[in-house]
Amino acid sequence: MSEPTRSAAPFDLTTERLEAFSDAVIAVIITILALGLELPSSTSWLAIREQVGSFLIYILAFVNLAIWWNNHHHLLRATTRINGAVMWANMALLFFLSLIPVATQWLRTAHQPKPAAFFGLVSFCAGIAYSVLIRTIIRANGPDSVVARSVHGDVKGLISIALFGAGVVVAVLSAWISIGTLNLGTWIPIALYVAVAVMWLVPDRRFTHDHPDEAAA
Amino acid sequence: MSEPTRSAAPFDLTTERLEAFSDAVIAVIITILALGLELPSSTSWLAIREQVGSFLIYILAFVNLAIWWNNHHHLLRATTRINGAVMWANMALLFFLSLIPVATQWLRTAHQPKPAAFFGLVSFCAGIAYSVLIRTIIRANGPDSVVARSVHGDVKGLISIALFGAGVVVAVLSAWISIGTLNLGTWIPIALYVAVAVMWLVPDRRFTHDHPDEAAA
Amino acid sequence: MSEPTRSAAPFDLTTERLEAFSDAVIAVIITILALGLELPSSTSWLAIREQVGSFLIYILAFVNLAIWWNNHHHLLRATTRINGAVMWANMALLFFLSLIPVATQWLRTAHQPKPAAFFGLVSFCAGIAYSVLIRTIIRANGPDSVVARSVHGDVKGLISIALFGAGVVVAVLSAWISIGTLNLGTWIPIALYVAVAVMWLVPDRRFTHDHPDEAAA
Amino acid sequence: MSEPTRSAAPFDLTTERLEAFSDAVIAVIITILALGLELPSSTSWLAIREQVGSFLIYILAFVNLAIWWNNHHHLLRATTRINGAVMWANMALLFFLSLIPVATQWLRTAHQPKPAAFFGLVSFCAGIAYSVLIRTIIRANGPDSVVARSVHGDVKGLISIALFGAGVVVAVLSAWISIGTLNLGTWIPIALYVAVAVMWLVPDRRFTHDHPDEAAA
Repeated sequence: MSEPTRSAAPFDLTTERLEAFSDAVIAVIITILALGLELPSSTSWLAIREQVGSFLIYILAFVNLAIWWNNHHHLLRATTRINGAVMWANMALLFFLSLIPVATQWLRTAHQPKPAAFFGLVSFCAGIAYSVLIRTIIRANGPDSVVARSVHGDVKGLISIALFGAGVVVAVLSAWISIGTLNLGTWIPIALYVAVAVMWLVPDRRFTHDHPDEAAA
Repeated sequence: MSEPTRSAAPFDLTTERLEAFSDAVIAVIITILALGLELPSSTSWLAIREQVGSFLIYILAFVNLAIWWNNHHHLLRATTRINGAVMWANMALLFFLSLIPVATQWLRTAHQPKPAAFFGLVSFCAGIAYSVLIRTIIRANGPDSVVARSVHGDVKGLISIALFGAGVVVAVLSAWISIGTLNLGTWIPIALYVAVAVMWLVPDRRFTHDHPDEAAA
Repeated sequence: MSEPTRSAAPFDLTTERLEAFSDAVIAVIITILALGLELPSSTSWLAIREQVGSFLIYILAFVNLAIWWNNHHHLLRATTRINGAVMWANMALLFFLSLIPVATQWLRTAHQPKPAAFFGLVSFCAGIAYSVLIRTIIRANGPDSVVARSVHGDVKGLISIALFGAGVVVAVLSAWISIGTLNLGTWIPIALYVAVAVMWLVPDRRFTHDHPDEAAA
Repeated sequence: MSEPTRSAAPFDLTTERLEAFSDAVIAVIITILALGLELPSSTSWLAIREQVGSFLIYILAFVNLAIWWNNHHHLLRATTRINGAVMWANMALLFFLSLIPVATQWLRTAHQPKPAAFFGLVSFCAGIAYSVLIRTIIRANGPDSVVARSVHGDVKGLISIALFGAGVVVAVLSAWISIGTLNLGTWIPIALYVAVAVMWLVPDRRFTHDHPDEAAA
C-alpha cells in the first residue's frame, strides 16, 4: 500500500486500501465457507455419500464468491477515484456477501425451498449492491473515464440479477403451491444459480481479446 | 506495501503496515460476526421470524464496524508519521473492536439490559481508544500537520462516546430499577446505538465538499 | 498495492492483488487449521497423550500449507503478466487448499484409510491445479519469460503429485483388501505425505546458489 | 505490494509479501482468540463474574500477540534481504503463534498447572523461533546491515524466553510436587507471563529517543 501521493490531500480517498479491505473480507468469507463442511458421521460409504449434496453446494458457493472477487477486482482495477458513496456501496456489497456462508450452510443442511430462496435473495441483493457500486464509481470518475467506458451495459450483471431473482420467485411460489415430491422449488432455483456461475466462467472476450499484445512476453 | 524509503532508518515507523494489519483484523472481525448467525431451527415461518431480531442486531454491529473502518481509514490516510504510542493506541482500539462479535452474540441470544450494557461499554471503550489514537497521532505529526487540521474537534466522535455511555447508563440503571415488561433497559440503549450509526451514515461534507474537483474525471 | 501503471489499461491484470488475495486466503486457511485442535478432555497425562497423534497431523498439514504458500510466492514473484486463465487456475488451487482444514480434521478424528485417502486426494488435486497454474502463467508470459526459464521441469512438483496419488491408491486399496490390525492403509499414505513435506523442506539450491551475491549486505 | 524491482531477478525474495502474509496470519490469530470467549451462562452477576478470569487471560493473550506483531513489524522493517532460511524461520514463528489460541483456550477453561505450562511452552518456542529468525535475517543481510546494528543483544527477547521457560518449569514441577490449595503452579507462571508483557509495554527508548526529529511534523 505505498501511496506516492499520500500527503497530497487530507482525506484523499484512494482505491488501494478499499481493495485491500474488500480482499481481506472476501478471503475470510471464502475460507470460512469451508468451516461449515461437516465431517461424515462415520467412514462408511453411506455416510460419505450423504455429504455429496452438501459438498456440491459448497462448490457452487465457492465459485459464486470467486466470481464476485474476480469482478470486483476488474472493476476497482479500472477505477481511479472513489468517494464516500463508493465506500458505502462497497460496504453494502460486502454485507450481502458476508451472508453467503450462512445462506450456504442453511441450504446445505435443508434442501428446501426457503433456504434456496434465501441463498438467491442474498445473491440478488449482492447483485443490486454491485450494480449500485458500478454506478457510484462511474459518477465519481466521470462519463469519459476508463471505468465508465469499460463496463458499458454490464449485461452479464443484469442477467445474473434476473436469474437470482427468478430463483427466489420460483422457490417462494413453490412453498405455497405444492408440486408433489419432486422438490422443484429447491432444484430449479439451484439450477438457475448454477447457470449464473457457468455464464461467468465462460471465458470473457473483453479481457482476453482486448489485449492481444499481452500474449507475448 | 512498497516502501520507497524502506532502508532509510532502522526502525522508521510507517503507516502502511499498521493500516494493513488493522484492515486484516477488522476484516476478520466483520466476517466472523456472521459466523454467529444461527440457522432457523426449522424452515417454518415461525422459526424464521424468531431470527429477525438477531438479524437486525447483526446489521447494527456490521454497520458499526464498517463505520469504525471508514473512520480509521480516513484518519490514517491523513497521517504521515506514527510512533510507539500510536501503535499501542491502535492496538487498544483493535482490542475493543475484537470484543464486538462476542458482545453482539450475547445481545443476540439475550435481549436484556446487561448484554445491551456490554455492547455499549465495548463501543464506548473503542470510542475512547479512537479518541486517544487521534490525540497520539496529532502529537506524532505536530499541530500544523495535515491530520491535525483535518480532525479538529471530532465532534461526531465525542457525540458517539456520549451516546454509547448513555446507553450503558440506561441499561445498567434499568437492571436495578424495574420498569415493568416493556424492557426499556434493552431497547433504549439499542436505539441510542442505532442513532450513532445513523449519524455517521449521513453523508459527511468534509469528504465530499472539500474536493469538488474530484467529481470530474 | 500501489500501481504506478494503474490507469494504463482498463482491465490490466496485475499480479499484486492476486498475490494479496491468495495470501489472505492461505493465511486464513493456515490459521483455522488450529481451530480444529481439540483441548484434552482433562488435564491428565493420558488425556494429553491422546491428542499427540492429532497434533502431529496438525504439524503435517501446517507444513504442507506453508510449502504451498512458499512455492506460490516464488512462482508469482517471477510472474509479470496474468490473464483470466491464470486467475481461474489460481482459484482452483485455492479451492483445493480450502479443503485441507476439513481433510485434516477428518484424519485427526479418524485414523483410518478413507480420511487418509481424502487428505491425499485434496493434496493431489491441489498439485494438479498448481501444475496447471504454472502452465497458464508460462503461456501468459511467453516461453522466453523469466518465469518460464525459472520453473523448467518442476520435477519436485511432479514427484509430489505422484506421492500424493500413491497415498490415495494405497489407502483406497487397503479399504478393500484387509491387511490385519497394522492399519497400513492409514500410516503408509501418511508416511508418503510426510515424505513430500521433507522433500520440500530440504534447502533448494535454485534459490540459494543462484544468487550468491545476496549473501553480502 | 508494488515492486519496482519486480522482474529484476527470477526468484528475488523480498520482504513485502512475507510481511503481508505474517500480518494476515497474526491478524487472524488475534481475532479468533476472541472466538473462544464464552458467553455467560445467564445474565446474573454470578454467571458474569465466572467469566472474569477467562477474560483476563484473553487480555494477556491479546497483549502477548500484539507484542509479537509489534516486534515482528520492527524487525522486518529494518530488513532488506531475505532468503529461504528466513522464510522458514518465520514460518516456525507463525506455527508457534498459531498455537496460542488453543493454549489460551485451555488455560481459560482449566486454571491448572498443565495448561499454564503449555501456554508458557508455546510462548517459549515462539521466543526461540523469533531469536532464530533474527539470526537468519542478520546472516542474510550481513553484519554491517541496518538490521544487524539495530537488534544487537536483543536483551528483552532473551529475558522473555527465560521468563517463559521459568513459567514452564514452575508449572511442571508443581504438577509433581504438591503445594497445597494455593494453586501456585498456575498463578506463578501466569504472573511471569504478565511480567513479560509489562516489560514490553514499557516505552522503549530505542524507538523514541533514537529519532528525536520524528516528533516534529
